[in-house]
Amino acid sequence: MAVYTEVTEEDLDAFLAAYDLGAVLSLKGIAEGVENSNYLLRTEKGTFILTLYEKRVNEADLPFFLNLMDHLAARGLTCPQPIRAKNGEALGRMAGRPAAMVSFLEGMSVRRPSVQHCGEVGAGLARLHLAGADFPMRRANSLSLSGWAPLFDGAKARADEITPGLAAFITDELAALAKVWPQSLPQGVIHADLFPDNVFFLDKHLSGLIDFYFACTDALAYDAAICLNAWCFEPDASFNVTKGQAFLAGYQSVRALDAQEIAALPVLARGAALRFLLTRLVDWLNVPVGALVRPKDPMEYVKKLRFHQHVKSAADYGLLA
Amino acid sequence: MAVYTEVTEEDLDAFLAAYDLGAVLSLKGIAEGVENSNYLLRTEKGTFILTLYEKRVNEADLPFFLNLMDHLAARGLTCPQPIRAKNGEALGRMAGRPAAMVSFLEGMSVRRPSVQHCGEVGAGLARLHLAGADFPMRRANSLSLSGWAPLFDGAKARADEITPGLAAFITDELAALAKVWPQSLPQGVIHADLFPDNVFFLDKHLSGLIDFYFACTDALAYDAAICLNAWCFEPDASFNVTKGQAFLAGYQSVRALDAQEIAALPVLARGAALRFLLTRLVDWLNVPVGALVRPKDPMEYVKKLRFHQHVKSAADYGLLA
Repeated sequence: MAVYTEVTEEDLDAFLAAYDLGAVLSLKGIAEGVENSNYLLRTEKGTFILTLYEKRVNEADLPFFLNLMDHLAARGLTCPQPIRAKNGEALGRMAGRPAAMVSFLEGMSVRRPSVQHCGEVGAGLARLHLAGADFPMRRANSLSLSGWAPLFDGAKARADEITPGLAAFITDELAALAKVWPQSLPQGVIHADLFPDNVFFLDKHLSGLIDFYFACTDALAYDAAICLNAWCFEPDASFNVTKGQAFLAGYQSVRALDAQEIAALPVLARGAALRFLLTRLVDWLNVPVGALVRPKDPMEYVKKLRFHQHVKSAADYGLLA
Repeated sequence: MAVYTEVTEEDLDAFLAAYDLGAVLSLKGIAEGVENSNYLLRTEKGTFILTLYEKRVNEADLPFFLNLMDHLAARGLTCPQPIRAKNGEALGRMAGRPAAMVSFLEGMSVRRPSVQHCGEVGAGLARLHLAGADFPMRRANSLSLSGWAPLFDGAKARADEITPGLAAFITDELAALAKVWPQSLPQGVIHADLFPDNVFFLDKHLSGLIDFYFACTDALAYDAAICLNAWCFEPDASFNVTKGQAFLAGYQSVRALDAQEIAALPVLARGAALRFLLTRLVDWLNVPVGALVRPKDPMEYVKKLRFHQHVKSAADYGLLA
């Protein structure tokens, strides 16, 4: 939740002069999105989300994200659609920052996903993978295997402040994953951050996917492994195999996982847990003075990672043979 | 800006079952209101602001605030209008807190008020005073003269951390105001917090007043003195007499200040500056761990108070004879 950059009426008027959206009716900073400043904008032409991209987003990546949303929306996926200025550009600048507007999506994220929600998100993720299959741009996943060690280097010395032995635990896991990380799985556009915050539902059915600012090109099954972590554990960090089964069945109702992907699922799930453990660890150790966001607890992902380390096969996640 | 209480879909469904607003379409936490948690709620029947009242609001005061908004709206003032449940109640409970919904107002607050904005807000404040004249409920102003000394007691020992000599400066000002504070000015409902955040404009014209959670019964001219502090100083804390003139002329175009009120204006403006100095001082010295809101600088109001101490008469604020 965040509004890092305050927008003045002069900023907004100057920005909107390039668009054809009529007069402004209201602008509300919204508590959505951890990385950027987000506003709900109402004009005579409709309701939009206005995003100011803060420094953690690499400006060179923005065309990938905006074009991807256009591409997915054109293929029928319900996701925010970039609003283009009169000159055709989707990306502008406001208050010294890159800025863009996207269409507003109805729907509510769920805080406590049910089995049915997990099934819906499985199918939604697979639809995203199919819709992205012919997207021509590529973006490397900076938060995959090769990115984890440098990320950990900055936090290693203080990791044991979180729990004794954490530095050694992560060091061992990094070494183990480096040996077994799969390199030849089917690749494509992945969302890479499809947590419950980023999925909207209306009347228990999935109504839209948002926040494509971690999207990249990587193994499709890794995206599924991220969702197993994000959707199928209970608040006490126990894995709910009924939710895992619903998620995987939902996914496979749209796109079948191949034998290689199924075999890789436990390793991918370990990697996904480690990825969120590492970013949470870094955030936890680096809360800026005056921070507006409470960091999330890294220990949640230590527990999830320990679970995945003991998984024998995808059947333990509820995959039906 | 704040969302202190997270609302689950179960919380919302349970709360809305008492209303006749149709299905929920979206819910966004918004960065508006420092004291409470505010959400923008869209349902099949429209757009609403949902407020969960946090602990700094006294629950016993809520009927005053909600009835006041109803009263003012019924008299044509554009302000949020409480939405009543099927049983007629405007106040409910959600997530263990008192909660209410009000109508959504179009409009944008301004961060850098112009002379024209100051004139509009003057007239708007006077309309509020007239519309509130026959409001039957009363609420004492807990942040007037008798409340300042106890507030200061909790901060006095550490006040000099802000600037050396601040404790003595405030002690002297409290003593001076106690001797001259006017007791027999025309009273009525005052907003008591009509800062630029709480006034909406559309196309440079005032379109609505919000946030009535400091409203109380007090001297009407004190409300004008608060606005002189909140609207008519520049960012460098210099008083802009053109803005003061526009504000006072706007006010008097709707309701004339009497001779007693005009004579009291410099003392009231000192009191208003001291009131915001004191609450900012307390907030500054008591930032809770994990706070989501940056406290505002108390020094801004030290500078404003020093200005008012040297004002000779209301003419110095731009009041035309």
